[in-house]
Amino acid sequence: MKETEALKEKIRQFRDQRDWAQFHNTKDLALALSIEASELLELFLWKAPESADPQKIREELADVLMYALLLADKQGLDITEIIEEKLLLNNKKYPVDKARGTAKKYNEL
Amino acid sequence: MKETEALKEKIRQFRDQRDWAQFHNTKDLALALSIEASELLELFLWKAPESADPQKIREELADVLMYALLLADKQGLDITEIIEEKLLLNNKKYPVDKARGTAKKYNEL
Amino acid sequence: MKETEALKEKIRQFRDQRDWAQFHNTKDLALALSIEASELLELFLWKAPESADPQKIREELADVLMYALLLADKQGLDITEIIEEKLLLNNKKYPVDKARGTAKKYNEL
Amino acid sequence: MKETEALKEKIRQFRDQRDWAQFHNTKDLALALSIEASELLELFLWKAPESADPQKIREELADVLMYALLLADKQGLDITEIIEEKLLLNNKKYPVDKARGTAKKYNEL
Repeated sequence: MKETEALKEKIRQFRDQRDWAQFHNTKDLALALSIEASELLELFLWKAPESADPQKIREELADVLMYALLLADKQGLDITEIIEEKLLLNNKKYPVDKARGTAKKYNEL
Repeated sequence: MKETEALKEKIRQFRDQRDWAQFHNTKDLALALSIEASELLELFLWKAPESADPQKIREELADVLMYALLLADKQGLDITEIIEEKLLLNNKKYPVDKARGTAKKYNEL
Repeated sequence: MKETEALKEKIRQFRDQRDWAQFHNTKDLALALSIEASELLELFLWKAPESADPQKIREELADVLMYALLLADKQGLDITEIIEEKLLLNNKKYPVDKARGTAKKYNEL
Repeated sequence: MKETEALKEKIRQFRDQRDWAQFHNTKDLALALSIEASELLELFLWKAPESADPQKIREELADVLMYALLLADKQGLDITEIIEEKLLLNNKKYPVDKARGTAKKYNEL
């Protein structure tokens, strides 16, 4: 089985043992994902760019990924497929010759 | 190659063609991840739980996953490993007999 | 009239001219506030600490404040009262002798 | 003294007693504001729109407002002025005849 499908299966199992699917509407999964991303961000607050605790980054990033996988699962999305599709879109939004070496947003290029 | 390692490789290639690694310190990657999670969340604003545009969810979720993978890559983390480790931790924080059927946080169980 | 009550009145007027109160349940107001705070944060992405565009900070901060005021209004909260109350709580969480000169969270002091 | 100027003064005093101005660059203040907005949002996670704990809303909203005021203070911004200015801008982005009764974004009107 593909790696991300095996991960989805493990996370679904964790969820179903607790009977949590009833709470997991798509809107609240997006809320949970955003809240976890913010907890990850908090590890960097008031700190220099590379000074956050690596073990905590590991744990918070895992939480972010788990909600991202639950959301993908809920929407029937394949992880590799949506990333490859988005890379193609971003390739048009950020053409190499214009985007090279600049951090500007696509609408400012 | 493992699926998520192949994805990291593709995203690194996209980044390096644009010479963007210079901007990708860990703190700003965490910021970018949080901002993308918020753009995903915005698709649900003022809407009923299952009313967001599926194509837009697909695209915004891909953005979230790409920054999560860049951050994991930067920290040298294996996706399956950190998720399995976190599931073990969550298993202790949310024991099945206490957490079953309730959406309470672990510190309120 | 108190400054923040006058502001609430102006924002309510803007909302009611558009018949938007029907969308403003408390959960979605909290979503909107979080999304606006993230748009403010985006002004700083990939940038040194004091390099964001001051005019854009001005505009995004105003959006954050407007949703904060709408939420306070919805909950019947007085701005000065809740801030003074929270300063008292924070005074206990962060006693001067322990918190002085450190950015640690209260649970790590 | 104007209400929000008096609030800024109280918050500055709390900050200076702890010698925290050294951590408060504008970027990290925007991070803190976004993190607090996310903590407020968490009160609504997995819940119906009006089911969050009112006392906790009160406290988390106060935290959001305090960082918004610190950021305004750092940028030398007057709260009433920036809100009135943004209401004028929003009035053009959301003309009453087009925006009335719809939750669409300005770029979809």
